[in-house]
Parts: sequence; C-alpha cells; structure tokens
Amino acid sequence: MGGTWVYWGQAIVWREIARYGMQDELEISYDFSRGINKFLLASTDKTQSFTHEEEDALITSAISKFVNVDGEHGRKAIPFPHSTKLNELEEKYDCMSVADRLKEIEHDLTPNERLCVEGWVLLCSGATLETTSFYEFLHWWALSGYSYEGCINHLVRYKFRGGQSSFAIRFFNEALASGNLTYVFNEPICAISDEAGSGVHVTTESGKTFVAAKMISCMPLNVLNDITFSPPLPEGKQQAAKIGHVNQTVKVHAEISDRDLRSFTGISYPHNGLIFGFGDGETPVGNTHVVAFGGKHNHFHPEDDINHTMECFKRFVPMDIKRVVSIE
Amino acid sequence: MGGTWVYWGQAIVWREIARYGMQDELEISYDFSRGINKFLLASTDKTQSFTHEEEDALITSAISKFVNVDGEHGRKAIPFPHSTKLNELEEKYDCMSVADRLKEIEHDLTPNERLCVEGWVLLCSGATLETTSFYEFLHWWALSGYSYEGCINHLVRYKFRGGQSSFAIRFFNEALASGNLTYVFNEPICAISDEAGSGVHVTTESGKTFVAAKMISCMPLNVLNDITFSPPLPEGKQQAAKIGHVNQTVKVHAEISDRDLRSFTGISYPHNGLIFGFGDGETPVGNTHVVAFGGKHNHFHPEDDINHTMECFKRFVPMDIKRVVSIE
Repeated sequence: MGGTWVYWGQAIVWREIARYGMQDELEISYDFSRGINKFLLASTDKTQSFTHEEEDALITSAISKFVNVDGEHGRKAIPFPHSTKLNELEEKYDCMSVADRLKEIEHDLTPNERLCVEGWVLLCSGATLETTSFYEFLHWWALSGYSYEGCINHLVRYKFRGGQSSFAIRFFNEALASGNLTYVFNEPICAISDEAGSGVHVTTESGKTFVAAKMISCMPLNVLNDITFSPPLPEGKQQAAKIGHVNQTVKVHAEISDRDLRSFTGISYPHNGLIFGFGDGETPVGNTHVVAFGGKHNHFHPEDDINHTMECFKRFVPMDIKRVVSIE
Repeated sequence: MGGTWVYWGQAIVWREIARYGMQDELEISYDFSRGINKFLLASTDKTQSFTHEEEDALITSAISKFVNVDGEHGRKAIPFPHSTKLNELEEKYDCMSVADRLKEIEHDLTPNERLCVEGWVLLCSGATLETTSFYEFLHWWALSGYSYEGCINHLVRYKFRGGQSSFAIRFFNEALASGNLTYVFNEPICAISDEAGSGVHVTTESGKTFVAAKMISCMPLNVLNDITFSPPLPEGKQQAAKIGHVNQTVKVHAEISDRDLRSFTGISYPHNGLIFGFGDGETPVGNTHVVAFGGKHNHFHPEDDINHTMECFKRFVPMDIKRVVSIE
C-alpha cells in the first residue's frame, strides 16, 4: 500500500503537502461524468446494478447500522478518535471483532446491506471479519468525521496527478539537498547489533556492515523474524512478529479498453479475491484504469497466476484487460 | 479572536498539537446532557424554542439551500478548497456577496431558515451580508467536508481544557528553550525601515530601535496605517490597509448563575448586537459560561457600555450575569 489517496483533513500528511506547495497537484479518482455510471454489486449468485446515488444510500444505511453503537453513530462512544488512550467502551470494542458486531445486528441488515458493509470493512482492513478489530473500524469512521462521505474523502477520493511517488520524491530530494544523506537500496538486512558503547551495527545479506550512532527502523512487522537482533527485541514485539500482520491487502491495477467503465464502482463478494474496485483513471489513449482490492479473505498473490487475477477483475463486470500491475 | 476551537481535520494546527503531544487535552464545548437543552431562535418579534435535533435539521436545511449552487452543495463548484488558485466559478462567487446569493434564493427560504442562514454566516464572517464574500463562505463549507456537521466540528466543537493559551505557551517556551529568542512586549511599533544594506530598523513609540537582518510582520491589517514604512508598502497593501478589515467580530463571555443554560444554543437576530451564543463551559462552583458573537452588523464595543452588553446577552434568554469578559 503506497498512500495513494490523500485529503486536506489528514493533518500530518497534509501539512507536508502544504510544506512542499503541492496543494494544486490533486485530482479526483472518480469520474461519473460519462459511461456506465453504475455501482455493480456482484454477489455469488447474481450482479445487481445501482446508480451511484443508490450506492451511497445503500452503503450509508449499512454502515450506519454497523457503527450505531450509541444512538449517535459512534460520536458518543468514540469522542476523541485521535487519542491513543482508549476509554472503557473503546477497549471493549477493541476486543470485539467485526464478525462479533455483525452478529449483534444480523436481524437488522438486508442481504444487500450485509454485502456492502462486509465488503467495505474488508476493503478497509485487508483482513477477515474475524480478525478485524471493531474498534479500529469505528476509529477510522470517527477520524473521518463520523460519516460515509467523510470516509470516502479521507480514504479514496483525492490523489496526486503525478502519483504518490511525486510526493515521496520531494522528501528524498530534500534530504539529498541537505548534503547529509547517504543511502543504499536493495540491501536486505539480516542482523542488527546495538551493544553498549560500540554504536549500532547493521549487517546486510550481502555481508556489508553499516555503523551509526542511532538507527530508526521502519521495517514492516512481517520482516522482523528474518533479522537477528542483538540484544533481542522486547518480548511483546517478538510475539507480534510471530503473529504477523492480519492485514494482507492486495491492490491491483488493470488497464482495460472499455472507456465506459471509467464511471463504474463495484463490490464483488464474498466469492471473489478482489472485493472492491472502481474506475480510477484514464491513459492518454483513452484506456481505463481500474483499481481493485482484496485481503486475507480469499487471499491470493496476483502475480502467481495472471489468469486468476484477470478472472477476479471480470467478476465485477466483463472487461477487456490489456495490462495488470499489482502492489501488495 | 484567539483560535479557541481546534479539530483533528485542521491540518496545520493539528500537526502542531500532535507535535506537542496535546491530543488528549481536548474537551467538547457543548454539553446537552442536562438543563434547558434547547435551541432558542430569538427574532425581533418573538423567541421560538427548538430541540437540538430540530436545530440541526433547520440550519442544515437553510445552509443546504444557500450553498447548493451546483446541485451538489458546492462539491462541484469548489472541488479543491485548499487551493489558493480560484477557478472561474470560484472567482464569480468571490465577486458575489452573501446578500447577492440570498437574493437568488429568497423565494425558497422559510423565514426561520433565513434567520438561521444569515445568523450563521454572520457568525462566520463577523461582517455584514453585503460585505461577506459568498465564495469565502463556500470555501469554509468545502474545507469542512461540505456539511453542517463538518462546519460545527471544524469551527466550534472542540477546545483545549486549559484554554488556547495552554497551546500558545508551548510555542513560546520552545522558542525560549532554544536560547535564541529575545522578546519585548507592550512596545507598539511606529516605524519600519528596510533600506538596502543597513538591515531592518524597527522603531517603537517609546523611541527604542531594534535592528535585525530580517523581519517577519504579523501585524493585523487595521494597524498598518499607524506605521511609517520605508520603503513604503506596495500599493495593493496600502489600499487594503485603507479599506481595513470587513471582519469586525465581537466575542464576549458571560459567567451566569443559571446552570440550566449550559445546554442552550441560540441565534438572536437581526435586532441584536450578539448574533450567536451558547453554553460553553462551567466554573468550579457550577456557574455557566456563555459565549456569544457579534460583528459589523449592529457593531458595538462590549466594554463601552456594560449594561448594553448584558442587554445583548439577555436578548437570547433571560440570564443572571455575574461577570463579562470581552475579546475583540
């Protein structure tokens, strides 16, 4: 996941965007101005078609029931979502899975609402209903202003015209310009030693060693087990590394010839490995970009079997795929 | 105006709040848990009483009509509100006053909607209907996520338990701790000279002169005319200083004995100098803070005539005032 979408309500990232003067480099992912202009809800037995207004109403209704733990759609239960200190209620929800919450409201959801809320939550978590914290969803919901439109704005509407790399490269170039950065790529690390007095020693698989006064590690959780730490990591971190990420998000782009699908959005669930997809852009020759997401639910590696990956796309709606790019 | 209210959707200020680790120091201004728990709409001839749910519905309906220039409540017209580059439509709205826009929709507003939208806009601008840019209101609206709830969140719901000064003092103390700050208070400036080669010379009314390589001025617009600039300010800035601020916001706190008014909100318009007020806090002995706002519309200086100021408060609802504090 590359931080594709950004929003002016995301404090920390927006401050950096403003710092680099990139406020005018945003575009809107969706384009509902022409073409099919439909929301397709593809479940196991059939595909239903809705207008985008009907889509908003359906998903809003579904998520509203899901988050309405307090009669105020989470406003009372999660009053300060930016805080890292959880109140008693928040702790309770953090010990509840999304599956637990769905069980509580199962008699209140229509079948379509259930497809939508499950699809939407799995898009957010990349996990399964059983391994997604209910609190974490409420947390995102509250940070996004307690509304579905807020979630769309914060999560998936606005992106850089030049791609996320147009942003990242500013950080890198600024660090370079300081004259104080040396760097190396493609050197997987195998050992980190931080014994008192001798500085931090970082050894790579190819046998090189780097020494520094301090080290900041931003290695993903699932990589930590491949590295020998001396002294060892704290017990809690070792345990977390053993469990690994519950988030197994799959993100795939397809370039397709059908221009009309620029205005399609869709949920394809529960049978499909790609759960949520939509028209996300257009190439200079007029082909459509479709972006789609999967997760631990029906997990697959898109590059393992390109035919399976294309099949997953076609379970939203038939499309003529020219090219597939996956980001895991 | 002191920046009382903050929100996690305000990128620049929230980044600083996070930097100082003050995320857990927020509280919610409103408290609708007990007492009168009403919205009072006091117009010239009578005072109507509504529940807060009715208040939200009424103001939402009023503002929705006001901002709905594109069938999408401003989403299409103001797609990138964080940008300083105005598109053609935004430029058109920037040349339209709020009074112009109200004229366009005068047949669609109920009298109560009209009271609410005018009161709300004047709360935001501190000016008059004729001197408030319609674009500027749309701009705030869009930055707040295109919703009334978003406006409430961004503008008036969350504040520091320790007051805004608990935040400002962090900046000051950090600058002090750098060992690189000298400062002086209560030295009004009368002349600034920045002639080539000799640095910036700043002269105060008491005759002191400060010299620096560079100077950052954050003097308010209405002060600039009292200062001799050498070389003179650019023509545009001189003209702006001559016109002065259209924003003449009045902000007054009253400490009152009526505990039940903790849960009151109100609009008092068009006859009153204080247009918008609500219960904003509680003293240790249980008195209620009420905060109220006025502007250029029926402008007055609250400290000129304390009886008039108290009268303005009582035009929301009768209250026993113990103390008044004004901030202009």
